[in-house]
Amino acid sequence: MIPFKLTDELIATIEQLIENQKNASLVELLEEVHHADLAEIINELNEDEATYLIKLLESDKTSDVLTELDDDIRESILRNFSAKEIAEELDELDTDDAADIIAELPKEIVQEVISEIKDDEHAKDIVDLLRYNENSAGGLMAKELVKVNENWSVTTCVKEMRIQAENVTRVHSIYVVDDDDKLKGRLSLKDLLTTSTKTPIRDIYIPKVDYVKVTEKPEEVAKIMSKYDLEAIPVIDEMGRLVGRITIDDIVDVIKEEAEKDYQLAAGISQDVEADDSIWELTRARLPWLILGLIGGIGAAGIMGGFEELLSNYAILFFFTPLIAAMAGNVGVQSSAIIVQGIANDDLKGSIGNRLVKEMLLAALNGVILAMLLLLITWAWKGDFLTSLALSISLIVVIIVAGIIGTFIPLFLHKKGIDPAIATGPFITTSNDIFGILIYFWIAKVILGI
Amino acid sequence: MIPFKLTDELIATIEQLIENQKNASLVELLEEVHHADLAEIINELNEDEATYLIKLLESDKTSDVLTELDDDIRESILRNFSAKEIAEELDELDTDDAADIIAELPKEIVQEVISEIKDDEHAKDIVDLLRYNENSAGGLMAKELVKVNENWSVTTCVKEMRIQAENVTRVHSIYVVDDDDKLKGRLSLKDLLTTSTKTPIRDIYIPKVDYVKVTEKPEEVAKIMSKYDLEAIPVIDEMGRLVGRITIDDIVDVIKEEAEKDYQLAAGISQDVEADDSIWELTRARLPWLILGLIGGIGAAGIMGGFEELLSNYAILFFFTPLIAAMAGNVGVQSSAIIVQGIANDDLKGSIGNRLVKEMLLAALNGVILAMLLLLITWAWKGDFLTSLALSISLIVVIIVAGIIGTFIPLFLHKKGIDPAIATGPFITTSNDIFGILIYFWIAKVILGI
Repeated sequence: MIPFKLTDELIATIEQLIENQKNASLVELLEEVHHADLAEIINELNEDEATYLIKLLESDKTSDVLTELDDDIRESILRNFSAKEIAEELDELDTDDAADIIAELPKEIVQEVISEIKDDEHAKDIVDLLRYNENSAGGLMAKELVKVNENWSVTTCVKEMRIQAENVTRVHSIYVVDDDDKLKGRLSLKDLLTTSTKTPIRDIYIPKVDYVKVTEKPEEVAKIMSKYDLEAIPVIDEMGRLVGRITIDDIVDVIKEEAEKDYQLAAGISQDVEADDSIWELTRARLPWLILGLIGGIGAAGIMGGFEELLSNYAILFFFTPLIAAMAGNVGVQSSAIIVQGIANDDLKGSIGNRLVKEMLLAALNGVILAMLLLLITWAWKGDFLTSLALSISLIVVIIVAGIIGTFIPLFLHKKGIDPAIATGPFITTSNDIFGILIYFWIAKVILGI
Repeated sequence: MIPFKLTDELIATIEQLIENQKNASLVELLEEVHHADLAEIINELNEDEATYLIKLLESDKTSDVLTELDDDIRESILRNFSAKEIAEELDELDTDDAADIIAELPKEIVQEVISEIKDDEHAKDIVDLLRYNENSAGGLMAKELVKVNENWSVTTCVKEMRIQAENVTRVHSIYVVDDDDKLKGRLSLKDLLTTSTKTPIRDIYIPKVDYVKVTEKPEEVAKIMSKYDLEAIPVIDEMGRLVGRITIDDIVDVIKEEAEKDYQLAAGISQDVEADDSIWELTRARLPWLILGLIGGIGAAGIMGGFEELLSNYAILFFFTPLIAAMAGNVGVQSSAIIVQGIANDDLKGSIGNRLVKEMLLAALNGVILAMLLLLITWAWKGDFLTSLALSISLIVVIIVAGIIGTFIPLFLHKKGIDPAIATGPFITTSNDIFGILIYFWIAKVILGI
């Protein structure tokens, strides 16, 4: 495999060929290109070029390309397709990918598209999948799987499996069901290679099989599949009937999206955006958090205004407010990030109380070390021991409070059923800025005896 | 499958049984527990209890438990094992997991452990894997795979495959090699189910096969496998010989670890720590970044000290320094996070110059909106239009500069071959705090004509 590299030259060549309608050359040039690479190429073309190319190439290739494209690009391309042309693409796709595409189509053409799908069984399966919530195992699963009845003989079973395997891109497990379609167990592919074909199914299947319910959250499915190293998991409905299966490639996407979402929230970005999105989209994702920061900053200014009488004799206290705010913010972000990850990985044990005590001790340890540094530096700099002491002791208290807030808020949100990741970024920084500055002036006043 | 739930009662029961040496009850209680769940239980026990339990249970179960344990717990448990006992566990493991465990053992016992491994072929494969850099495809791959020679007849092939499949937990693909062991292609399992067994291998194998070189970075392997939806990928050496394969479950771990590392760096945590690590470990991971923040804060205080003459007439400027610092930090973190994600996903196109221009426009748009808000609020509050205007215009400039720094630094680090993720957290916040405050006072002075 020569690794594919998307170059400006390749894009230019393709655009040239499209402009001159050199269809044969285009088909030849793109013949050996993997659909995931072709999707990268098409993401770089304009709508007309992309539409032209997809209509030109065979739908067994372009259908997979469509699933790989960015949502907005796919939608704009499909707007130029007739219902029949869309149905041709869907005919080639697995049911889960086909259902995802249909869910994005304008409502008025959905029915026509479905009626144009040639394979009735395929259409039925797709319609079935449309019913499930996108944010559930049902929304992730595909109908393609290999299943055998426990009452079959191995001969029937092998024959049936061959037929079923034709429609399944990858056979992971052979699921065993009873006459009511209830999931009973599985036959492993390894057993298939190593067991005599004379044995009856009922005697050879493995009754222990991991599964998830259709209503399970994608994150939970991801946790189960990665914990137990599963490459596919069957999905059952409320009656225990086998209704689909989820494969690890979809779960890899779930894991990556979850990680990106948490990362973006921690950075103060509220929607799923990419560097190449428009300035408008990026602004919508970023501005709300900046406004939150602005309000926090105005609050901090208000607090400092309230301590204005200290300005004449203790101006130095005001010079250190950015330091206090920064430390409160940093400690808060650190604490909350550790808690958010612990929650995500399910490895937080013990009570909230224990967590808070631990974080307090940790913050106190860090606080004392940092405060001693600050004491020495500011004392050497300004020569005023008492003010330096006031600064340093305030810093310790601010750090401890910041650690407690950073630990408590995500735990609290999680308890209330809210995604704790929203608490990691600007939210923690802003609230810690305000609390930090307030505590700082208050303690400094006490120590300085003002 | 009844989902496993780790409860305090279960741990208490197990501890009680261990204390009273009720071996039969322990074996019975844990018989049906999955090794991943058993690892969770053992993580909760103390060293003696854990050692007792692992020695008690069969090594075909405990070997997998060992691979799931946290590194430090595994190391402390294995310290209580003889070389022979360790070798018994390794006998049950896949070569990649066995090699990972050996790499952690004290050097003086490694040779003895290896000599105690019963299966010579297995021992040879493990020793072979020890040579590869942990941070490479070679360090990730396992030796277990199913391969057939292109010159074999299907009859030989199927017979050989059955033997090989015995040692392979999951058969993904059947790789085809030539007489020199060079990778030629693959036979898919689906073909195996749907093709007549009379056909010779040379005629039926698929010559197109994705692979990676032993020296490839794990992140690159993860990118390739997730882009092309692969569940296993063969690994070749410098001469094109098939030396191992990497499976998707290991790649899921790579993806999760990468995401956690980036997330922690963005939050100012420099090592891989968990909420349950000791206060000392957590301090080592957090304190360096806090010291950086402290130095930044002292720098900011120094800058403000330099503008002390403004205190008497323009004290309000000082009240807004936390706001300026917060906005500079937030914008910088947002910009750098988007760039870092773009780099990680390989979807940054265009030059650094274009990126910077785009970020400048974006920051300017956000800056103007935020500045207008600030202008209105501060004008209404203090009634001094000129000062409010100075504040607001400074804010715009600070936001633009923060956006440029946040965009430039990760791109620059990436160009220099340094992980750009280190630039996202306290590093950006701290440098933006200092630059922000400096720019802010400087511009305010110009506008106010001081």
